[in-house]
Amino acid sequence: MALGLLFFLEINVAKMIGIKSWPRRRKVLVVRALLMNFMRNFIVVGHKATTSPNFSLEDIPGTSGRLDILCRSVTAGFVLSHGIRKDVCVYLVLLGGTVPKTIVLQGETLRHLNPDERTTAALLKKALAIEAKPEWAMSTSGIFVRTGGLAEVLADLKVARILYLKEDGADIRGVECSGLSCDAAFIMGDHTGITDEEETLIEQVGAKTVAIGPMSLHADHCIVLLNWMLDTGMVGSNEKWFK
Amino acid sequence: MALGLLFFLEINVAKMIGIKSWPRRRKVLVVRALLMNFMRNFIVVGHKATTSPNFSLEDIPGTSGRLDILCRSVTAGFVLSHGIRKDVCVYLVLLGGTVPKTIVLQGETLRHLNPDERTTAALLKKALAIEAKPEWAMSTSGIFVRTGGLAEVLADLKVARILYLKEDGADIRGVECSGLSCDAAFIMGDHTGITDEEETLIEQVGAKTVAIGPMSLHADHCIVLLNWMLDTGMVGSNEKWFK
Repeated sequence: MALGLLFFLEINVAKMIGIKSWPRRRKVLVVRALLMNFMRNFIVVGHKATTSPNFSLEDIPGTSGRLDILCRSVTAGFVLSHGIRKDVCVYLVLLGGTVPKTIVLQGETLRHLNPDERTTAALLKKALAIEAKPEWAMSTSGIFVRTGGLAEVLADLKVARILYLKEDGADIRGVECSGLSCDAAFIMGDHTGITDEEETLIEQVGAKTVAIGPMSLHADHCIVLLNWMLDTGMVGSNEKWFK
Repeated sequence: MALGLLFFLEINVAKMIGIKSWPRRRKVLVVRALLMNFMRNFIVVGHKATTSPNFSLEDIPGTSGRLDILCRSVTAGFVLSHGIRKDVCVYLVLLGGTVPKTIVLQGETLRHLNPDERTTAALLKKALAIEAKPEWAMSTSGIFVRTGGLAEVLADLKVARILYLKEDGADIRGVECSGLSCDAAFIMGDHTGITDEEETLIEQVGAKTVAIGPMSLHADHCIVLLNWMLDTGMVGSNEKWFK
């Protein structure tokens, strides 16, 4: 309720003072995110992704159970042309070991992230070298690891709306988005998709199944699009787009 | 004129037979691209990008003049979840040597492209090992190289519309897009942007300067967004989005 009121005020104040240019709109977005503590959460499930640091940085796809997909999802979530998105969390669910692990990267305190795949893989390698327990343990600044898989991530999520990305879902542009703001979580699979058991878990938390476009895209490309949709108000704050 | 008529017919036939679902729309898009020989051309200018194959695959950003940016632009242009976009060309303008070189990757015949950065860098390394001349020479299937920079690429382009991506350009969603279809070229810079001299060249070919959103994004993320905008008809074929 309080959030809704603030949002209404912000949109109308922006209209009243005539903020039309992208740079000024960007400032409003950043101020909003900081003031209202909105977070964009991206959850990527890597079914074969290794939980061990013993993979080769010289052949990430071939030795890590396609951790390269998750590395690209991280950079898609965070990197801007000359900066990092502070209002993003990326959860990587790693199921390619005997015990599942989850790594979370939090934009607010994230350090040492470069846009290239290898540097990201090196950061994940460090996180996987830590002895994981059911409680979060910090690896480097803004990167935490623990044991547990998708069920644990979903149990922890405290967001207004959860969207599950699937090719045959409803067109995201037409979804009724009341309640969806930047404070949302988006779940997607790796190259193998999402299993039936995982879908059941996702349904149990009331997630809406949506499709992002006519083509079947990689997880990192979906994240780029979702960030942009939230940046532009195409989903979340601006109902005029949903005609 | 003939293209416009075909486009009009296609849109109306799709409406008449009630194509609403994404998978069926995707089929229409693919058939259209194949029948009408539409191409999406992405041109990325790498001001420090090496023209020599003597860079290290173990440290692409540090040894190649940020060829990593161009590698990610290639994968953003082509890769789908389980396939390659056939209707895409990516031009990489490499200015980090004594003589400029251009590499072009053509979706229709492109082979050996994987989604990871290192494999793409290895393909470019092969192309740079060929002795470049002013005429295109094939490296591997779908990858060609020659000497010459942005001026030569612009001189060769035969497309309906050229758009130049710049942060302070007009909002792409509001641009008058008559004549813009999938048969278009999009020009963007690397982390250093586009120089004044290059801008003059771009203006001379009648390019429209557009911005893609409120945030300043990496070239590869812009390409993901542009592909999606063309996939969904958000730019190019569907004026209802431009309200």
